[in-house]
Amino acid sequence: MTIEASKSEQRAAKIRLGMVGGGQGAFIGAVHRMAARLDDHYDLVAGALSSTPEKSLASGRDLGLDPTRCYGSFEEMAEKEAARPDGIEAVSIVTPNHMHYPAAKAFLERGIHVICDKPLTSNLDDAKKLKEVADKAKALFILTHNYTGYPMVRHARELVQNGELGEIRLVQMEYPQDWLAEPVEQTGAKQAVWRTDPAQSGVGGSTGDIGTHAYNLGSFISGLELEELAADVHTFVEGRRLDDNAHVMLRFQGGAKGLLWCSQVATGNENGLKVRIYGTKAGIEWTQADPNYLWYTKLGEPKQLITRGGAGAGGAAARVTRIPGGHPEGYLEAFATIYSEAAQAILAARTGAAVDPDVVYPTVDDGVKGVAFVTACIESSKQNGAWVRVSSR
Amino acid sequence: MTIEASKSEQRAAKIRLGMVGGGQGAFIGAVHRMAARLDDHYDLVAGALSSTPEKSLASGRDLGLDPTRCYGSFEEMAEKEAARPDGIEAVSIVTPNHMHYPAAKAFLERGIHVICDKPLTSNLDDAKKLKEVADKAKALFILTHNYTGYPMVRHARELVQNGELGEIRLVQMEYPQDWLAEPVEQTGAKQAVWRTDPAQSGVGGSTGDIGTHAYNLGSFISGLELEELAADVHTFVEGRRLDDNAHVMLRFQGGAKGLLWCSQVATGNENGLKVRIYGTKAGIEWTQADPNYLWYTKLGEPKQLITRGGAGAGGAAARVTRIPGGHPEGYLEAFATIYSEAAQAILAARTGAAVDPDVVYPTVDDGVKGVAFVTACIESSKQNGAWVRVSSR
Amino acid sequence: MTIEASKSEQRAAKIRLGMVGGGQGAFIGAVHRMAARLDDHYDLVAGALSSTPEKSLASGRDLGLDPTRCYGSFEEMAEKEAARPDGIEAVSIVTPNHMHYPAAKAFLERGIHVICDKPLTSNLDDAKKLKEVADKAKALFILTHNYTGYPMVRHARELVQNGELGEIRLVQMEYPQDWLAEPVEQTGAKQAVWRTDPAQSGVGGSTGDIGTHAYNLGSFISGLELEELAADVHTFVEGRRLDDNAHVMLRFQGGAKGLLWCSQVATGNENGLKVRIYGTKAGIEWTQADPNYLWYTKLGEPKQLITRGGAGAGGAAARVTRIPGGHPEGYLEAFATIYSEAAQAILAARTGAAVDPDVVYPTVDDGVKGVAFVTACIESSKQNGAWVRVSSR
Amino acid sequence: MTIEASKSEQRAAKIRLGMVGGGQGAFIGAVHRMAARLDDHYDLVAGALSSTPEKSLASGRDLGLDPTRCYGSFEEMAEKEAARPDGIEAVSIVTPNHMHYPAAKAFLERGIHVICDKPLTSNLDDAKKLKEVADKAKALFILTHNYTGYPMVRHARELVQNGELGEIRLVQMEYPQDWLAEPVEQTGAKQAVWRTDPAQSGVGGSTGDIGTHAYNLGSFISGLELEELAADVHTFVEGRRLDDNAHVMLRFQGGAKGLLWCSQVATGNENGLKVRIYGTKAGIEWTQADPNYLWYTKLGEPKQLITRGGAGAGGAAARVTRIPGGHPEGYLEAFATIYSEAAQAILAARTGAAVDPDVVYPTVDDGVKGVAFVTACIESSKQNGAWVRVSSR
Repeated sequence: MTIEASKSEQRAAKIRLGMVGGGQGAFIGAVHRMAARLDDHYDLVAGALSSTPEKSLASGRDLGLDPTRCYGSFEEMAEKEAARPDGIEAVSIVTPNHMHYPAAKAFLERGIHVICDKPLTSNLDDAKKLKEVADKAKALFILTHNYTGYPMVRHARELVQNGELGEIRLVQMEYPQDWLAEPVEQTGAKQAVWRTDPAQSGVGGSTGDIGTHAYNLGSFISGLELEELAADVHTFVEGRRLDDNAHVMLRFQGGAKGLLWCSQVATGNENGLKVRIYGTKAGIEWTQADPNYLWYTKLGEPKQLITRGGAGAGGAAARVTRIPGGHPEGYLEAFATIYSEAAQAILAARTGAAVDPDVVYPTVDDGVKGVAFVTACIESSKQNGAWVRVSSR
Repeated sequence: MTIEASKSEQRAAKIRLGMVGGGQGAFIGAVHRMAARLDDHYDLVAGALSSTPEKSLASGRDLGLDPTRCYGSFEEMAEKEAARPDGIEAVSIVTPNHMHYPAAKAFLERGIHVICDKPLTSNLDDAKKLKEVADKAKALFILTHNYTGYPMVRHARELVQNGELGEIRLVQMEYPQDWLAEPVEQTGAKQAVWRTDPAQSGVGGSTGDIGTHAYNLGSFISGLELEELAADVHTFVEGRRLDDNAHVMLRFQGGAKGLLWCSQVATGNENGLKVRIYGTKAGIEWTQADPNYLWYTKLGEPKQLITRGGAGAGGAAARVTRIPGGHPEGYLEAFATIYSEAAQAILAARTGAAVDPDVVYPTVDDGVKGVAFVTACIESSKQNGAWVRVSSR
Repeated sequence: MTIEASKSEQRAAKIRLGMVGGGQGAFIGAVHRMAARLDDHYDLVAGALSSTPEKSLASGRDLGLDPTRCYGSFEEMAEKEAARPDGIEAVSIVTPNHMHYPAAKAFLERGIHVICDKPLTSNLDDAKKLKEVADKAKALFILTHNYTGYPMVRHARELVQNGELGEIRLVQMEYPQDWLAEPVEQTGAKQAVWRTDPAQSGVGGSTGDIGTHAYNLGSFISGLELEELAADVHTFVEGRRLDDNAHVMLRFQGGAKGLLWCSQVATGNENGLKVRIYGTKAGIEWTQADPNYLWYTKLGEPKQLITRGGAGAGGAAARVTRIPGGHPEGYLEAFATIYSEAAQAILAARTGAAVDPDVVYPTVDDGVKGVAFVTACIESSKQNGAWVRVSSR
Repeated sequence: MTIEASKSEQRAAKIRLGMVGGGQGAFIGAVHRMAARLDDHYDLVAGALSSTPEKSLASGRDLGLDPTRCYGSFEEMAEKEAARPDGIEAVSIVTPNHMHYPAAKAFLERGIHVICDKPLTSNLDDAKKLKEVADKAKALFILTHNYTGYPMVRHARELVQNGELGEIRLVQMEYPQDWLAEPVEQTGAKQAVWRTDPAQSGVGGSTGDIGTHAYNLGSFISGLELEELAADVHTFVEGRRLDDNAHVMLRFQGGAKGLLWCSQVATGNENGLKVRIYGTKAGIEWTQADPNYLWYTKLGEPKQLITRGGAGAGGAAARVTRIPGGHPEGYLEAFATIYSEAAQAILAARTGAAVDPDVVYPTVDDGVKGVAFVTACIESSKQNGAWVRVSSR
């Protein structure tokens, strides 16, 4: 089976999907819906899209949902959908962070698969509890660290796994943005308000919102486990309640080292996520804003620019590539890949079949690691940058 | 109304869509389907996907189509779907070029909207006849010159329309590829076989397949009408029956000049479509492989890099932008924009409402111009590069 | 012997150099002087730097010249320096084009080596006469098509010569600028005034000033001889007396084809010289503004970015490289390479030694070809773009 | 007075220069000589080029030096040249680091100006002593942190000084290389041997060799003083005696923060020096390998690419620019700018004139700061990354 449903020999029935959050005015909900649609594995049939029944209904009408399946709360949706013979098989959770745990729990415990936005939860306690729930559940848990879906990220990971980089020495990650360079949350901008609110966002600001992405991506590609970190976490914008910049030094198990920089005040950067990994035999560099390219340099050889769909891109990239090289795929396609890999697992779960081992969507374990990373950053910074061991246990 | 169906206040019923061509092994059919799905305006419900009933059925099953709506020919599909009360409202034609005219005619004459791949037809006679049919029909005709859907292409066009470039002097277009640098059609590669076959592709090879794209894009952005051209069209690969490289000098009405280069043998180029336009006040440069950027330089000022979703991108770009800056959109998103603008027009046609003037998908007129361009290239080249007037009348 | 004098085993006496043109307010004269100094092969000891004795003396003083060797005319300088036992061995001619022929003749006929700026002359007659003079002279003639001195240009040429590109199909050259987008010559700007004056510049404007550079560079790298061309040469700026834009289609001996675009009105371009060459086995791309890089793609392999001084750069590049990779060399270094290769030949001429075959500075023959190219462009354009054979005989 | 001697109204006599180090097989000596020649302010007339009289003489002959002024030691040179009426006025010190202090002292105390390679010394004690000597001396001390000579670096600094960036929040510096990814010093490679030898190089490896460059450049542009740092300094290559990678977190006076990464094992990087600075009003980014460009983004406006010699580059860049935009200047030109600014100061010192305040070459104070930075990195790392105050007092 490949990424696109349309390539299947015999079409399976589409997966009935619900959504929590993502109503009018939201950003990431629409992204999840486009991602779910692109490869045609899902039918969105129910939603608890907003915090009140009225708004939820209005948002549901926009999406063409059956009004009787537009719920006023996730609890109601979980209960009622679980009771329907044609109830949802999976749910996308696209709320602010603090809702991830209770919502995911409600669905997982009813055997409904969960596709959840990152970070996993707003704090490490919730993360660990969610892991317990997920581990026990019969349903799957998929975390949308969407950048892992980019074909050239997959290729980078494959290079590492194939030993092409040799022993890894350095993992350099950065994710600079500039959209919070000024106190826009004070103007009421919805995306800024909740992301800078500890009650909704959790312990970390930039660290939770984008630092986790960078950390996840470096881990995904390198395959390394973080051992300890030393962080200088800071809030530059006066009155802001969460961090908007962090400098982190990293030590991985096995001796590799790294740096991670995330910032929401670095003017001139939109979503400047970049990962660079250097080993004894080769180095790679990947930039999210230009995702169809991977720089790859073997020690003592010319730099190579591997392109998605081009010569030099291997099987792992090909598996998640939809169109030929030179026709760029973007953010939504990478996001859709997570949804399609989730679909592969969910469809396999229908029949008890084994999931293709190439399906590598992020899991609850990755989510716990991410929250542990944020927690350690904050802890280290409180100790003036002392090294803090990172444990997701 | 915006690009995404999900943003509409009250969701309209989705458009019932059929497809001609695009069965197993095809490339562009899947692209059209993804494009149709992304913004959720269409339901694919019928198809004449292959040249035999058996293959068409097999391909239809893959897509989850009702077997009774998998037809063995476009004629059958046109007839039967037109007779159904729930028949298709629109059809995507994604066959080789020579089929565009008869298939489009069959649907248009039955009042079914046509979304057709480019070039319009395989020769100028067909193109003119198709225009006659389309002009008389009650149904709409949309040509998928998909590159016009990129947000930064829209922004470039808006800059020109707003006079920001001043009087245009130069329109430089190029579209180099390398996938036909060797005679791969002799190995049976499906995409290469039909594209190098005059019976299926028409009079032009590279000129028809990609030269038309470049020409269309230059025209779309600049708003200029071509007056005459001088071409040196060539086939480098021995045994190939259509051109694989063309050099064209252009003169536009009003005095602007241009160059167009298309090639399928330029090793190192995937889909290197680039348009550069220079006026008395400013110049712009856009490259398809990196579509989220537009270089914009006002005379005597620093170069600006306008980004999709970033500061400096105007209303025309914003209208067709789905996600924030720094998260790249790609080829499928641009393609989807054509589908979504088609949907806006089709939905308006349901009720007789006026179409938003910002809807600017390519039409049958653009298609005739494209075929006239190819025809003139071939004609000029036969006359050893003499200037040939380009007329789509 | 290598590029830098300082690497020689036993230092030869420096070459006594004079200069014609290049006085106060000139641009290219200072460039020649820096180029002559960089590798320490020359001593500038005499000059006819300006058109009057007073200005020439003032300019000479600025440069620390002996006032008795600051001449009021090149004729005087040629005569007097030839008569001195310590007279100049070589002269740099950096005047407007129309002076190249008489000045070069005066020195060559007295056995003084000539290093002359491009284009060779202001018209083809002069060019052919200068070739006759140079061919008969005992002195050397070096033409400063300086871009041929860039290490990655040398590497590109070596790749072609080694057959790495296979049979060449396409040579695409462009040289867009924007400094004449407005009629700046009417403001008295010195560089613009003479370059747009037929009496000083010759038959070609942009074609002569930069088109010759692009054409020379394409020829230098590809090794191909031009057979015929068809040109659309134009003047966009009202009142300008020479062309400021040209579109040229090219046919080379042996079947390769090409395009050449030069422009002085392409806003946003400073010195956008680019050469792309495509063969049956590989393609290359080089851009003057980023000269330390060469894109090199073998058919069916990933793109390689060869860097000056890096892995993948061969012997021809290494010969003219001064500093390690990653520390950029620029325009002056490339220019200096022409001077240093000229020095190698001049030093060899002192003793009658053979010149290293790797010394490949442009000669009078290249100069005649350049003027023939310009002449053919103008001729073709007068014939409305008819193909014109290019003959330097 | 401008950068080029040739632009001066009345030419001053050139500065008589000597050199310590830089004999056969050296790298940086040739760079200094080219830098000294480019703008024609110096005559190299004496040298203690190697560690033995024989080698020094051989090297001197290569350079055309008078054999009687080729000395076997810097002590001898200092003594004898100081005694000559036509003795050197200035000396370039281009030895390994441990020789900088004694050599500089010998010349400074005799009133001979010193142009010294970086880092200032091999340890902080020497650095402080050298500062004492320099402060007392009548001669000037210039430190060749050559990257400060790039025009776009000057422009960046000018933007900061003019307040265009607002209050600076972040200074991000990196300098990755890969030439020591393997233990090449064990093969006897001269450049690697001394740079990895604590006796010659000092306390820092990568930190001293390139970390100081990055730190100096960040300070030069931002104008900020470092307060404290926390470092994780490491040696990846087994058997190497000095660090080859360092991660450093920085806190500046006034509240700005920064990261610095230097590495000699980051495969795929040649001299990847990059500085990014973000303030409340704008951000800038400059990369040494592409030095003619400066990215400049004002908050809420499109990104600008400022080019050397182009629109948007201000007076500070213009002062040190030799050739028009689009014709790249490189490493040697930037290096030459340091030499030319040194010449301006030395020529002023001849007459007691004031030095142009725009002359901003690095001084002994910058050198002490650099060694203090390295020392603090090593100290912090010994304390497992504890914050260490950086004091150059």
